Amino acid sequence: MEAPRRDDPPDLGGRSIDWRDDEVLALDQTLLPGEERVLRLRTVEELVAAIRRLAVRGAMALGVAGALGIALAAVRAEERGADLEQEVRAAAERLRAARPTAVNLGWGVDRALAARGGGARAVVAEALRVRDEDIASSRAIGLRAAELLAGRRRVLTHCNTGALAAVEHGSALSAIRVLHERGGIGEVLVAETRPLLQGARLTAWELGRLGVPHRVIVDGAGAGLILAGRVDAVVVGADRIARNGDVANKVGTLPHALAADRAGIPFVVAAPESTIDLGVASGADIPIEERDPREILERDGRRVAPPGTEALNPAFDVTPAALVDAIVTERRVIHPREGVEIGPPPPA
Amino acid sequence: MEAPRRDDPPDLGGRSIDWRDDEVLALDQTLLPGEERVLRLRTVEELVAAIRRLAVRGAMALGVAGALGIALAAVRAEERGADLEQEVRAAAERLRAARPTAVNLGWGVDRALAARGGGARAVVAEALRVRDEDIASSRAIGLRAAELLAGRRRVLTHCNTGALAAVEHGSALSAIRVLHERGGIGEVLVAETRPLLQGARLTAWELGRLGVPHRVIVDGAGAGLILAGRVDAVVVGADRIARNGDVANKVGTLPHALAADRAGIPFVVAAPESTIDLGVASGADIPIEERDPREILERDGRRVAPPGTEALNPAFDVTPAALVDAIVTERRVIHPREGVEIGPPPPA
Repeated sequence: MEAPRRDDPPDLGGRSIDWRDDEVLALDQTLLPGEERVLRLRTVEELVAAIRRLAVRGAMALGVAGALGIALAAVRAEERGADLEQEVRAAAERLRAARPTAVNLGWGVDRALAARGGGARAVVAEALRVRDEDIASSRAIGLRAAELLAGRRRVLTHCNTGALAAVEHGSALSAIRVLHERGGIGEVLVAETRPLLQGARLTAWELGRLGVPHRVIVDGAGAGLILAGRVDAVVVGADRIARNGDVANKVGTLPHALAADRAGIPFVVAAPESTIDLGVASGADIPIEERDPREILERDGRRVAPPGTEALNPAFDVTPAALVDAIVTERRVIHPREGVEIGPPPPA
Repeated sequence: MEAPRRDDPPDLGGRSIDWRDDEVLALDQTLLPGEERVLRLRTVEELVAAIRRLAVRGAMALGVAGALGIALAAVRAEERGADLEQEVRAAAERLRAARPTAVNLGWGVDRALAARGGGARAVVAEALRVRDEDIASSRAIGLRAAELLAGRRRVLTHCNTGALAAVEHGSALSAIRVLHERGGIGEVLVAETRPLLQGARLTAWELGRLGVPHRVIVDGAGAGLILAGRVDAVVVGADRIARNGDVANKVGTLPHALAADRAGIPFVVAAPESTIDLGVASGADIPIEERDPREILERDGRRVAPPGTEALNPAFDVTPAALVDAIVTERRVIHPREGVEIGPPPPA
């Protein structure tokens, strides 16, 4: 039997990101659903580049990526005999700057960074703990959110919040998976999620694999379908949650929340505790990343808009707490609509 | 000097559709902004096909297209010595069915149809009157809506409502053009308008030609920008307006209206009288055309979503009257938010 060559694509066993042989392995999500290619990332620079071009993405996966990035920096520093403290601190800055709105990224970075006193192996061990906790949290979020959504057979979701956005299971899609396992899903409406189409490409791919009935819609169709009575609940993830319950999530989330509010159906945010930023009072204080206009103006490298046209490309929008029925984490359920000041989670 | 060959592209002089040498000439809008190709449509079948594939589109242009389609049928019937009554009636059915939600199409058909007692030339004359009235109405709508929007420098619009959607001037874009002529536009945010990108392709092209500052956004970004205080007014067109002021327009319009309502900025609908359907009590009675799922699932003929994925593709949504500050026509201003029962327009 042939030994696997170095170039053979590694099998991630259903995970989107992992650590093996002191390297980060990650599914290149920009190539899905057409091609399943696993990236081997050996340096922080390679990981940062993968995060920037959204090959690695999703709030929870970014937390794990941040921790694994610090592990990469620590191991590479040790191999070169470089100053570990200096190397991991520089890596932390580069990783945080890769996606400024994604609070989980910085959270994962900080977790691994805190272990640096114990040397490179201690940093790796902590990063792997972040990974394992993420898997357990994902399932816990799904179970809890599914309780809230029980009986809501027609669910609308936005962007990608499944295994591809975490390590396994995900957040909003974890809930949909649990509902489906219990026979509770009639149909999932998947907003395609412009400009990068994470809904049409990634969520449709994950739901197809799980056997969950679903149809893709354009983002702008969600509100009309909700007001026409064709949706029983909206469930989405989050990129950052402020203390008052304002939720920053992928651009296009807010319209679904406005429509759900008017129609009187639940708008539920499923997200890990790490998404809650206790340092941010309200959504007005959340920086909104503006991305490359070409994501809107071109497709497949060909220009759609006329030459000279410019675009404004915010990556996120902020849904006011008053429109959010519930934020479900691995530890608790928060009801922002009633007015909240979110504190630390209860003891586990 | 060479005589122009039959195949030379005719010049439409800035119009999107016209009548020449007993044929309909129309700019193929599916090729814009990359190519300006004028279609010569000699039969009702050719015109219906052009309408179905959105080569000819836009509420007002469809009204003119409906009238010119009856003129085509009448002239062709006369040439063949066929029964004019029978031919134009059959043509009317085919034209109406080409875009069932677009009330103007049927309105234009009926106008030309009513002249059939006078023979083919009377039908042509009436169709040309529909065309000329459309041009005058467009400008009147723009002037009236611009009064309402004076001082609102940052305007958001959806889909295409300019000269390309009418014969000249348009509806919502006619208002933006008037505001710009008066120095009143800071910037227009153009929602790209998925799935067919009429905003990014056509509205950006028209605004570029008029020299109006503008940027394209994804449809889902409108609500977030409105709630962030970055928009002073929303102005859109309409495909059909019910007696109670509910407005059916291109899918993705409703989210902008929900956000404008929450932010307290005006949501203005600019549309010709022909868009008002006095036979329809409310939006619930407006049939919503569902279009080919491939418009969402593919781009440039290549599949975006995984194989086997389905899509739900409503072409329109309905904005409830309670979210509409004003409907501006060539004859009047209606304020649906306060509760209305729209009747016939006042005498001219």
